[in-house]
Amino acid sequence: MDIHDIHNISTNCTRTEFVGTAVLDTIGLVISGVDDSLLKKMNVGTQYHCLGLFSSRTGAAGQITAIDDAVKATNTEVLSIELPRDTKGWGGHGNYIVLGGNDVSDVRHAISLALELTNKYAGEVYISESGHLEFAFSASAGPAIHKAFGTPLGEAFGFMAGSPAAIGLVMADNAVKSAAVSITQYMTPNIGTSHSNEVIIAISGDASAVKAAVLEGRQTGLELLIGMGTYPEIPGTPYL
Amino acid sequence: MDIHDIHNISTNCTRTEFVGTAVLDTIGLVISGVDDSLLKKMNVGTQYHCLGLFSSRTGAAGQITAIDDAVKATNTEVLSIELPRDTKGWGGHGNYIVLGGNDVSDVRHAISLALELTNKYAGEVYISESGHLEFAFSASAGPAIHKAFGTPLGEAFGFMAGSPAAIGLVMADNAVKSAAVSITQYMTPNIGTSHSNEVIIAISGDASAVKAAVLEGRQTGLELLIGMGTYPEIPGTPYL
Amino acid sequence: MDIHDIHNISTNCTRTEFVGTAVLDTIGLVISGVDDSLLKKMNVGTQYHCLGLFSSRTGAAGQITAIDDAVKATNTEVLSIELPRDTKGWGGHGNYIVLGGNDVSDVRHAISLALELTNKYAGEVYISESGHLEFAFSASAGPAIHKAFGTPLGEAFGFMAGSPAAIGLVMADNAVKSAAVSITQYMTPNIGTSHSNEVIIAISGDASAVKAAVLEGRQTGLELLIGMGTYPEIPGTPYL
Repeated sequence: MDIHDIHNISTNCTRTEFVGTAVLDTIGLVISGVDDSLLKKMNVGTQYHCLGLFSSRTGAAGQITAIDDAVKATNTEVLSIELPRDTKGWGGHGNYIVLGGNDVSDVRHAISLALELTNKYAGEVYISESGHLEFAFSASAGPAIHKAFGTPLGEAFGFMAGSPAAIGLVMADNAVKSAAVSITQYMTPNIGTSHSNEVIIAISGDASAVKAAVLEGRQTGLELLIGMGTYPEIPGTPYL
Repeated sequence: MDIHDIHNISTNCTRTEFVGTAVLDTIGLVISGVDDSLLKKMNVGTQYHCLGLFSSRTGAAGQITAIDDAVKATNTEVLSIELPRDTKGWGGHGNYIVLGGNDVSDVRHAISLALELTNKYAGEVYISESGHLEFAFSASAGPAIHKAFGTPLGEAFGFMAGSPAAIGLVMADNAVKSAAVSITQYMTPNIGTSHSNEVIIAISGDASAVKAAVLEGRQTGLELLIGMGTYPEIPGTPYL
Repeated sequence: MDIHDIHNISTNCTRTEFVGTAVLDTIGLVISGVDDSLLKKMNVGTQYHCLGLFSSRTGAAGQITAIDDAVKATNTEVLSIELPRDTKGWGGHGNYIVLGGNDVSDVRHAISLALELTNKYAGEVYISESGHLEFAFSASAGPAIHKAFGTPLGEAFGFMAGSPAAIGLVMADNAVKSAAVSITQYMTPNIGTSHSNEVIIAISGDASAVKAAVLEGRQTGLELLIGMGTYPEIPGTPYL
């Protein structure tokens, strides 16, 4: 294998496993019948041999929100959600999600839908020279959000992460003071993250309260991050 | 929220929580009365509702040394010190520190002082294409250094970290051979770090011995890091 | 210490500890008689006072394969292998390896050999804008490969890592389906890695089967990674 051989491979991937890509270095893949010896190592049970795979270098909550909608719309199940320490050199996470289903077209459809929705839900990522912010909102938490953040099924879900970590805590404080919401998850470099440089909260409650709290957190976070001296880039398209 | 709205936010932050910034993407913040539901999740006790927050993308020992002096000079207490895996793509840590106090002006003063001292104490950071080095020294360890590195209160404190990790071990070896010092902390990718690519030691003992050992470690580390082929940048101002 | 002083240090390192460097920010060092108090902290036993150190910012399996051959060829022993979360901002690992020996010339020779072999065995690293791939193969696993990946001594060893993690799982699946091999190690962001954004497998079995499986995994991984839109750089020289 050399540079020459590599350029014989097309960027238009035609492998049967390839479903597509989305923003933030996200890739969606399907394995129609996973190898038995591999499945036994995966710690995702052995019920499904058809697996959907979803994975990004940057971001977590937006993609999990996308997967959540995709799973609700298809006959598939979330088998595992992992958050590597990544973000391409920044202080946060990426994601690695495994879905299962009995029918390869269901699973492929779920992954395809999740890629499409990632281009929307991963829009609330702000990355500056000094740090980053991430936000997410869903009016009704499904199984992926429940599994990742403990939000009760059917309740509204809000998410905010700020880096450097101190920004995340002030965002969280202002958010929970601004509306009647409950904290369902609290994460710091040593608590629950993969040692990322973030404070993260997930909140639940009434949809309008949760949305108001996320918007308050976002305003706080942007003012503080920009106060560090530079304006963030927005790799997606904000939707809140 | 779009790019246009973001540029309506000023880089001169006027939020009441904002205290200031320092080198190495350091931000200092104060929450005058933290939300109760958030405080209960934070694992820092519930004695203080006034919190000082201090957080950087890069560096740990220099900022902890700055916090140490700031806490000694004010009526505040160190509640938690966490070391995320960060350094903006390099092989080390950032930091996230929470202080508590009964009086918001005390806490604000402590954070302000720590920011000012960070511009001094975080001066001993050297970052090249291949790796990085960090050093710190205090003639008398206070509560922050004690909490982070186990240095007995009042004893001199020395710190050295080298990346790639092998450099850190040779620095450590030469340092402890060069003077009568004790190793109070030893950290590697799998021991005590957040999987950073460093060997780190903290040392204690007589002030002149500790300082001599740190200087010996620094000379060793610089020779080896530069031996990898490129000269380091020095984002702060060395003070040792 | 200032910028001026630093440039008085030569990039031709003449320290007795310095053995040399190799690709991927790899450095090799020797301590001829390690300090007793330091050795006791190191968790590598106290049998050897002569230590060989080997450490890189990027890559793991290639360097471990190089160390494996070096240890087989010299009278030295592998004392520890650690995998920091590094890769200079990418989603994977670096490495930090400690060898021990009774004779400084043996240990120096082992490290020197490992540096030379790293320039070969770390050749199978592919890094694009979106992620990275790493492969390794040895016809006969020695003590370093056994210690790091559980491969039975004397059996053939194959390794593949893919990032974002989903790519690694499809590579693994195709590899183990393509030949009669056993999975000796399975790693994900939450299982066995330092929270890297990779799925990794190590395989063993008959040499020709293991090599065929690695090549199948490589073809799969390259097609998927390139399918994310950009061609990878190859910092070393592929050897498979």
